[in-house]
Amino acid sequence: MSDIPMTLHGLHAAYARGVSPEAVIRQVYARIAAVGDPAIFLAMPTEAEALEAARALGPFDPSKPLWGVPFAVKDNIDVAGFPTTAACPDYAYTPDGDAFVVARLKAAGGLFVGKTNLDQFATGLVGVRTPYGAPLNSIDPEIVPGGSSGGSGVAVGHGIVALALGTDTAGSGRVPAALNNIVGLKPTLGALSASGVVPACRSIETISIFALTVQDAYAAFQVCCAHDPADAFAKPCPAPALTAPPAAPVIGIPSADSIRFLGDTVQAASFAEAVDLLRGHGAEIREIDFAPLYAVAEMLYEGAWVAERYTVIEELLRRKPEAIHPVTRAIICKAEALSAADAFRGIYRLKELARAAEPALAGIDALCVPTIPTFYSTADLEADPVTPNSNFGTYTNFVNLLDMCGIAVPTPARSDGRPGSVTLLAEAGKDALVAALALDLEAAGNRALGATTWATPAPATLPPAAPTSQGLAVCGAHMTGLPLNHQLTERNAVFRRTARTSDAYRLFALAGGPPRRPGLLRGKPGTGAPIALEIWDVPCDQVGSFLKGIPAPLGLGTIDLEDGSTVQGFLCEAVGTEGGEDITNIGDWRAYIARTG
Amino acid sequence: MSDIPMTLHGLHAAYARGVSPEAVIRQVYARIAAVGDPAIFLAMPTEAEALEAARALGPFDPSKPLWGVPFAVKDNIDVAGFPTTAACPDYAYTPDGDAFVVARLKAAGGLFVGKTNLDQFATGLVGVRTPYGAPLNSIDPEIVPGGSSGGSGVAVGHGIVALALGTDTAGSGRVPAALNNIVGLKPTLGALSASGVVPACRSIETISIFALTVQDAYAAFQVCCAHDPADAFAKPCPAPALTAPPAAPVIGIPSADSIRFLGDTVQAASFAEAVDLLRGHGAEIREIDFAPLYAVAEMLYEGAWVAERYTVIEELLRRKPEAIHPVTRAIICKAEALSAADAFRGIYRLKELARAAEPALAGIDALCVPTIPTFYSTADLEADPVTPNSNFGTYTNFVNLLDMCGIAVPTPARSDGRPGSVTLLAEAGKDALVAALALDLEAAGNRALGATTWATPAPATLPPAAPTSQGLAVCGAHMTGLPLNHQLTERNAVFRRTARTSDAYRLFALAGGPPRRPGLLRGKPGTGAPIALEIWDVPCDQVGSFLKGIPAPLGLGTIDLEDGSTVQGFLCEAVGTEGGEDITNIGDWRAYIARTG
Repeated sequence: MSDIPMTLHGLHAAYARGVSPEAVIRQVYARIAAVGDPAIFLAMPTEAEALEAARALGPFDPSKPLWGVPFAVKDNIDVAGFPTTAACPDYAYTPDGDAFVVARLKAAGGLFVGKTNLDQFATGLVGVRTPYGAPLNSIDPEIVPGGSSGGSGVAVGHGIVALALGTDTAGSGRVPAALNNIVGLKPTLGALSASGVVPACRSIETISIFALTVQDAYAAFQVCCAHDPADAFAKPCPAPALTAPPAAPVIGIPSADSIRFLGDTVQAASFAEAVDLLRGHGAEIREIDFAPLYAVAEMLYEGAWVAERYTVIEELLRRKPEAIHPVTRAIICKAEALSAADAFRGIYRLKELARAAEPALAGIDALCVPTIPTFYSTADLEADPVTPNSNFGTYTNFVNLLDMCGIAVPTPARSDGRPGSVTLLAEAGKDALVAALALDLEAAGNRALGATTWATPAPATLPPAAPTSQGLAVCGAHMTGLPLNHQLTERNAVFRRTARTSDAYRLFALAGGPPRRPGLLRGKPGTGAPIALEIWDVPCDQVGSFLKGIPAPLGLGTIDLEDGSTVQGFLCEAVGTEGGEDITNIGDWRAYIARTG
Repeated sequence: MSDIPMTLHGLHAAYARGVSPEAVIRQVYARIAAVGDPAIFLAMPTEAEALEAARALGPFDPSKPLWGVPFAVKDNIDVAGFPTTAACPDYAYTPDGDAFVVARLKAAGGLFVGKTNLDQFATGLVGVRTPYGAPLNSIDPEIVPGGSSGGSGVAVGHGIVALALGTDTAGSGRVPAALNNIVGLKPTLGALSASGVVPACRSIETISIFALTVQDAYAAFQVCCAHDPADAFAKPCPAPALTAPPAAPVIGIPSADSIRFLGDTVQAASFAEAVDLLRGHGAEIREIDFAPLYAVAEMLYEGAWVAERYTVIEELLRRKPEAIHPVTRAIICKAEALSAADAFRGIYRLKELARAAEPALAGIDALCVPTIPTFYSTADLEADPVTPNSNFGTYTNFVNLLDMCGIAVPTPARSDGRPGSVTLLAEAGKDALVAALALDLEAAGNRALGATTWATPAPATLPPAAPTSQGLAVCGAHMTGLPLNHQLTERNAVFRRTARTSDAYRLFALAGGPPRRPGLLRGKPGTGAPIALEIWDVPCDQVGSFLKGIPAPLGLGTIDLEDGSTVQGFLCEAVGTEGGEDITNIGDWRAYIARTG
């Protein structure tokens, strides 16, 4: 069987050397057979159907970013013609159309290859709460696959597909990533349309994306992210090209007092190593008391939000209660004891907890947390179906309640060989930032992708982000302490340094005033003298209003500095220097006004 | 008794001519006695105490915008040392501290003169659901005072105080304004802290402000608007100085098919007259189908939000149900039948209705609605305590559910002499816009303030809003159709017009290139020729990045135009023109390149 890495890079390289999409589809089906786990997929096209879809792609189309990329879909998301079960056979229906996001993947050239198993009604973080049998973890069959998007995580972990959709309320798009050594991108709430998704907790959930690499997950996010007015919870969200993160991002981590590994010292060491990697890449690490975030996390199942899940199954529960997995039913039916007043009290409490968490999160670019505090085996879950599940949510449950976005990213394997994983989290809309921060982590160490032997991608070089401020040289009344300096400071400009012009410049005390104003005039090299400047960083969006306040004969142009570099700043029209006093020999406006009083 | 108009303008004028704050307080108490309605205030300082507070103000302090301005406070808002009853004696407590907003009014120099009656627990729009007896409407004792902030509305209507705080969930800050011929400012949710307020519907309510004039209500809003981290629902909100509204705002009104006056043709005519006033001030009126907004409105009492009110009274209801007004109790106890699942279903339905309303609201600067569809008498309410109340909410109930801000403003009296009133509504954060739009309406016609004989303020002249774009003259490759024009268009710059410089300018084809570049150089008047320019409107926040792309010897300065005006635009350093070709005689870069190919 062929061994084309299931990454966009690997697939593009294969297609560039003449491999056909059909050959890729054959590899997908061969790998499914080789893995031999019947619990990953709940429904699939036949291989013949999938091959036909691959042929129908036609010739390579560079305008389609996912051309020929195989993807799987969690079985609570509609794919036209395939039953949507939410892992509950009695709930199943067969949709006529694709979910909004599935349609976008297909339109971008993606090849659908199967609906994946899940914790029923996306309720769980373990992957074993399914009547179809649990898929086996791709790395180690003893440990749980993770959930609720278990089948999607395992399919990507095995390298069967390059991309798989999950959903994420409590951590269902992140926990399976940690357990299968893959990437789990949990977008900002509302960024990806929920049209065609069986809801779990409609107000605080999102479709998520699994991939073997950060670049792939983010590329799929960019494809899927489009505003859908038909989804009342959808919000426009930016999905810009990735740019280099800040050189010294401030990254919050749980404080030593508040971090929880439930006794797993190997996991603690693995997390410390990941934090060191961030530090090595320039991050400033700031320890944060996680108590307020744990308090938020507890709202998810202890609070009123379980009633959201109840709205989904209420009719089925009345009609055929035994159709619902007993563990799932026990969890969701807690909602029966909750009144509407309880729901609003829960909303109030969440608002208060979120406010209480604000001071700790202020000034942080992102959080870095262990994706999971420790590992659990299927045997652990058989012994206690609830506690391990709750523990998995330690670092994931609070995220959607606080409307943060995040990405779970593999880190170097733990000392016992199990996968390492951290999740980077940031405020809503910062999906690109957390992905960019994750790139350095995934490239660290000697790691293979998922459960495969494919090598991790080389560290990426991202283009720099567009600057938000620009240097501006001032030589007169705008300098520190002088009368017009406020025009800079009230625009949040920041003093950067002093400098001197090249010797091509002459400085004039212009005729007229008050206020007295200098004029800087460039001539030929050697005809002037170095003139004292201050260079300020002015927010780019403030330069326009600053320019508006500059009267003739002054303007903004390019100034040559003594050290051979250039900066933009104040210049004077030549005609405007007539009648002025040539003060080039003083060389410094401040010295001139000190002298003349 | 003195007759100082209870407006900031009137009070400032009085203080300027030497009137003392004590004299103003004496007028307040004399007016209370003259009105003789014991149901307006539920608690007051004694006149001696109020005079002492006035004396304690010390000399006039121009830094305190409400220095010496008497204000009243709805009795569900804490004032230190006075019981807070929410019009329920069994609920009453006496707070040690002021509500956040009351503290701000006092710190700004305001003089507290009393706690005002209300519909119990702020549940109602009529003002008669109170065990303390209903205050009489200030204009006409037959009609209801309006509620729930009835006492506050009546106190301002009588000119007893200049300002009064209300609260507003369903319209409690607007309906009393309509019924008492005054202004009711309903801020953006979260703009004013709810610390120290007895909640009604905590997630969708706000403190509101009554005043005799728009300027006064907005001035108080500016004083009160400050972020309070202790209120979990507080959000930072702008409260800028008022500036002129757009010259031709697009104002949405209910379509002829969907407008509701419940048979009150006099009210319909009054609304049509107000719309004509807006049109006369340049507004573009757009008719909107209000069906989706009425559907939102119905959620307020039909949907789950009544459970928010239930959380407030639940303990009292258990302890002493008869302490609660029977009408109020009947309304709020509907929540007992609602589950948490119902609450979330309500939240989903609201999201869907809000989304459905989006297309109609797109492109609208503000909505203008009748504040109330018709009038009701106290006799009407005795006959049916619920239906008239619901009808009052026709144009108010949807507003907080959609997170809009608004201001109820008097319009010329109806043909039957009753007060006219419309409410201007806009999206959250546009409090200044609706206030600015309201100014023209309040100044129209021959109206007195509230129930007083004081004249309406003269039409205000507001300073223009800060422009969002600025003119920039280009004379070379940035002109339409030329190679660098995209640097303007990709920044959303808009071509405004062609122009020519004064005759002080020479134009050069600079040495070097490609690209070939012109240089515009100012000399003495008459030494050059008019040079062809294009003037573009560039968004102010884009000028900085545009400047960054301009290389030496070019820069941005001020250009004198042929018509004597000036514009900022491209100039060239004199030293940079050396070696270039003087093409002043051609006078137009486009003509030069056409000629030279």
